[in-house]
Amino acid sequence: MAKELVFGHQNPDTDAIAAAIAASYYLNKKGMDTEAVALGKPNDETKFALDYFKVQAPRVIEKADTKEVVLVDHNEAAQSVSNIADLTVTHVFDHHKIDFKTSAPLFYHAEALGSTSTILFTFFERDGIEIPKPIAGMMLSALISDTLLLKSPTTTDVDRKIIGKLAAQAGVSDIDDFGIHLLKAGTNLSKKTDKELIDGDAKSFELAGKTLRIGQVNTVDIPEVLTRKDGIKKEIEAEIASDGYNGFLFVITDILNSNSKALYYGSDEDKIAAAFGQTLTANSLDLPGVVSRKKQVVPPITEQFK
Amino acid sequence: MAKELVFGHQNPDTDAIAAAIAASYYLNKKGMDTEAVALGKPNDETKFALDYFKVQAPRVIEKADTKEVVLVDHNEAAQSVSNIADLTVTHVFDHHKIDFKTSAPLFYHAEALGSTSTILFTFFERDGIEIPKPIAGMMLSALISDTLLLKSPTTTDVDRKIIGKLAAQAGVSDIDDFGIHLLKAGTNLSKKTDKELIDGDAKSFELAGKTLRIGQVNTVDIPEVLTRKDGIKKEIEAEIASDGYNGFLFVITDILNSNSKALYYGSDEDKIAAAFGQTLTANSLDLPGVVSRKKQVVPPITEQFK
Repeated sequence: MAKELVFGHQNPDTDAIAAAIAASYYLNKKGMDTEAVALGKPNDETKFALDYFKVQAPRVIEKADTKEVVLVDHNEAAQSVSNIADLTVTHVFDHHKIDFKTSAPLFYHAEALGSTSTILFTFFERDGIEIPKPIAGMMLSALISDTLLLKSPTTTDVDRKIIGKLAAQAGVSDIDDFGIHLLKAGTNLSKKTDKELIDGDAKSFELAGKTLRIGQVNTVDIPEVLTRKDGIKKEIEAEIASDGYNGFLFVITDILNSNSKALYYGSDEDKIAAAFGQTLTANSLDLPGVVSRKKQVVPPITEQFK
Repeated sequence: MAKELVFGHQNPDTDAIAAAIAASYYLNKKGMDTEAVALGKPNDETKFALDYFKVQAPRVIEKADTKEVVLVDHNEAAQSVSNIADLTVTHVFDHHKIDFKTSAPLFYHAEALGSTSTILFTFFERDGIEIPKPIAGMMLSALISDTLLLKSPTTTDVDRKIIGKLAAQAGVSDIDDFGIHLLKAGTNLSKKTDKELIDGDAKSFELAGKTLRIGQVNTVDIPEVLTRKDGIKKEIEAEIASDGYNGFLFVITDILNSNSKALYYGSDEDKIAAAFGQTLTANSLDLPGVVSRKKQVVPPITEQFK
């Protein structure tokens, strides 16, 4: 029989890949027969982590060919495999807002911790299951990635407590040094096309019948990214036209100074601006102190569309 | 500041009340300031447990007057407080199917264990928090109630493992003897009016835009309940007319022999019958081996309405 597939969201980030690998290992230790896969190729940051800890990238799927699946780091159908409606979800490990519906009970654990890998660590610990060194390394990378080295407001005391344990298990002695190298590996935007830039980490959100696309890139130089504004605008408008989005918000985050700027194209400009108490100037928004899409971008926008 | 309210579903059963009491105690031990309340008065079975363990019934509310709440033993808006859409849910402990949507991350733990009280026990154990004797007694009662003394197909190995620990902590030496007394306390239907009979444990389910009401009573004598069929039919039809349900399924369960009969009134008769591979005879369905609404009634009906 085919192994039950375990996967994170489309456009996978490091946590989506690491949590799939960790959850699959954990569930197999609990007696299941699962395989970690991914809904896209690893990004540059994730590649850095996979290389560093000598872990093979999970194979990429678009549709799941098993009847039962495990979701990590997401729960919304719009961010999952294309045939999610035909599948039975048996487990969810996630740290996002919830928009989820099933016809039978299942295992579902969501908690507002910094990364899904943090959540999985608590289950490994609870059940006394040792985490192999390469998997601990991937989980450490995911925690650093999702919390921007514990600087994001999504960071919790649990994350702060766990990061040292994961580093020790992964054989990483200088967390800050490793973390800066990891994060910087994800900021090399110059070799990306404008389309790759906006698609890299973008997710769709269903808000009162409308579909909003929200992308985010990390950088150490926001002005450099903004020199590409015309190209970015063109690609976003093309994507809105082809994929039927109502709007596209592109967040550019300075990971060293914990600030963002955003570009917005689409309908409901007033709502997007109001979400941040601003007006749009040349499609641009200043987002001082904003680094977390999940905690600082999606909730205020969701409120506006209620 | 008002305490954050913790509550189970409308028409509370023993698990809805016990899990609210247990979750409130657990969360307070974790540093929160919560109060267990209920969305209805305790039923006869719950009253037996409350009396036995000398626990006061939680006060009854219909609307929550705090901004933040904790849900136990349910997650669907239709089964919750009337103003649930205006509230922020901070925690969910549940063992039912999921139909849930939020605008921010939260703590959500669902697991297909026999009772929500079983789930809470695993968290008490994980965090090394001792359960006071009366609360252990209520949790034991809830586990017995929801699993019909471990006979329901919803029973898991975790329930079988935990029941002895809860009984020891509650000071109950003969689980079977206590359990039979508890379950029988809930089967005294003779003093209930026909309306009380159908409303007792009924829950609403939203299925493809339709609202189906599903009630269940436990008995040791199905034919005795069926002598009241005319009165039951009258009350169900009145409720469909007044509350706008599309249908009402009333399940009568023999807790000693693990069988059920059901009466159905409303539209989509064919779908209800097909869910159990039968045709309706005089609005009646035979459900051999069926004791669990959650596992054996709701999922096949949900499938039919997909």
